[in-house]
Amino acid sequence: MPTNTPTNTPTSTLTGREWQLAARPHGWPTPADFALVEAPVPEPGPGQILVRNLFLSVDPYMRGRMNDAKSYAPPYELGKPMQGAAVGRVVASEAEGVPVGAHVVHGLGWREYAVVDAAQAAVVDPEQAPLSAYLGVLGMTGLTAYVGLLRIAELAPGETVFVSGAAGAVGNQAGQIAKLKGAARVIGSAGSDEKCALLVDEYGFDAAFNYKNGPVAEQLAAAAPDGIDVYFDNVGGEHLEAAISSLRVHGRAALCGAISVYNDTEPAPGPRNLGLLVGRRITLRGFLVGDHQDLRDDFVREVGGWLREGRLRYRETVYTGIDQAVAAFLGMLRGETTGKTVVALPE
Amino acid sequence: MPTNTPTNTPTSTLTGREWQLAARPHGWPTPADFALVEAPVPEPGPGQILVRNLFLSVDPYMRGRMNDAKSYAPPYELGKPMQGAAVGRVVASEAEGVPVGAHVVHGLGWREYAVVDAAQAAVVDPEQAPLSAYLGVLGMTGLTAYVGLLRIAELAPGETVFVSGAAGAVGNQAGQIAKLKGAARVIGSAGSDEKCALLVDEYGFDAAFNYKNGPVAEQLAAAAPDGIDVYFDNVGGEHLEAAISSLRVHGRAALCGAISVYNDTEPAPGPRNLGLLVGRRITLRGFLVGDHQDLRDDFVREVGGWLREGRLRYRETVYTGIDQAVAAFLGMLRGETTGKTVVALPE
Repeated sequence: MPTNTPTNTPTSTLTGREWQLAARPHGWPTPADFALVEAPVPEPGPGQILVRNLFLSVDPYMRGRMNDAKSYAPPYELGKPMQGAAVGRVVASEAEGVPVGAHVVHGLGWREYAVVDAAQAAVVDPEQAPLSAYLGVLGMTGLTAYVGLLRIAELAPGETVFVSGAAGAVGNQAGQIAKLKGAARVIGSAGSDEKCALLVDEYGFDAAFNYKNGPVAEQLAAAAPDGIDVYFDNVGGEHLEAAISSLRVHGRAALCGAISVYNDTEPAPGPRNLGLLVGRRITLRGFLVGDHQDLRDDFVREVGGWLREGRLRYRETVYTGIDQAVAAFLGMLRGETTGKTVVALPE
Repeated sequence: MPTNTPTNTPTSTLTGREWQLAARPHGWPTPADFALVEAPVPEPGPGQILVRNLFLSVDPYMRGRMNDAKSYAPPYELGKPMQGAAVGRVVASEAEGVPVGAHVVHGLGWREYAVVDAAQAAVVDPEQAPLSAYLGVLGMTGLTAYVGLLRIAELAPGETVFVSGAAGAVGNQAGQIAKLKGAARVIGSAGSDEKCALLVDEYGFDAAFNYKNGPVAEQLAAAAPDGIDVYFDNVGGEHLEAAISSLRVHGRAALCGAISVYNDTEPAPGPRNLGLLVGRRITLRGFLVGDHQDLRDDFVREVGGWLREGRLRYRETVYTGIDQAVAAFLGMLRGETTGKTVVALPE
């Protein structure tokens, strides 16, 4: 068509690379557990769009999907493309309202091209924020921080908050939201002195400690001598036990994940101090962001405003090239990255 | 006064027996940790009443007060009378509205006579229920069951409920309230086959198992193959870990106490499966009945109605004589008693 309107990309011979799970990891995954495969890209059917992915998300929960265990997300199938959040550009469309040239967030990452049901994709505006932000600070990780802190832990102004894994995508945002919502004191833990400095200097945490420098319980008690009211748990294990001991009467813990034990092959020792829950009337509550999509509009409005005002900061660790996706995932799991970890796919 | 109105008992030379904590138990208490002492009874001052206690309550939480540890209830002081719920008859009164002859529930048990601020006592009606019931089924233990099940665990009709320590005063009532409130299935655990039979035959539980007969997790899974929605925890330890594994998505556990570990001298191993809380969106919540006195009127009306209709049953284990109070307490802790354990003090 001799117009300037973007048109469908011919797709009949299109191929794209995708990551498949080659073997189920036992303990820590290794590159040999994954295979990068070139595969034909199907044409979009009615109501579908073809998306050229521009950024892929790697997230801790994906480790669970590599196991063949019943969980909230179905396991990845061996020899099939994996899945995950991605943002991309529509290059062919058979769906009304989602034209070629639009940008969308969807759930078929770990691949260069994806055919997506338009109903499962959300159009996003690259003028409002960089595209990668829709995977992080304005995406699922950001909403996770928002939901966990405000709805699950029910943060009230004036309270003291502890966030573990605080240099991660969810953690740093949880800490910043806590401050923006009036927390009196926000403490973070991270796995290096550099990350701790970042938490205080860039993200405005009141205190931070490197959990590798000593027992978590001792470092937390030193940072919060009067105890904490809210614990945002990204880590589990020793952190959770220490936080329970520090929680005050009517304290709440939002359990977001437990990255410290995802690769354990034996059950980790559990917190020995759950008896404290009774006398202190403590609540521990696990949550998944998927249950709380009703908060998304509030979240985008509020966090978007903070971003525009420069009151909320974020960092990304960007790996480039689809061949780097497994490296990105493993680097994130090992704590080598800071902020949200994404994989950029140059066209 | 030549009338039939009961009058103040002369108190100037009155003495009464009271239990004092003689030593702080290490592990399981022994009779040597307690002393029964004869002491002068003071005269009631303005606004006070003198009560002849008729029934004393012994409760698991009292074990915690024997330790010198900061907790929700202050520790018992060595060489001072202990405290606990009691019901008695007013024998002298300097308080308006609480006449001699009235019956009251108050918090100064472990003794024959108590001088009580009238504001800290609640008048009860022996015509409505036996006096001892105000310590159990219509008292703190009953309210604990009601609060834990309905407010803390937010039981909904059609759900499956598991109650540990179910032959105890709180547990059997929690199970019965669950059935009366429309639970689809109620399972209890207890420490003997006889108690299990009682749970099913007398209290209407759908199933019960003796936790001494095998691993709790296996027995619970057999009794609730599709999992549970609500866990009412009186026990902690192995029971709590098993219940977490059985809790379904959006399951809730109300943590009332952990009698299995009260006498431990080392921290018991904690549940190794708290990671399940995230994917299943499980909530664990500790509570104390004292925070929920606003439910008392609802509780008395509803449970009183069920009692009158014969829809809620209760048992008591009654020890007689103040010299039996420690034996009653230890028997209750060891699980030798059934239902609410009280000590009757014949006049």
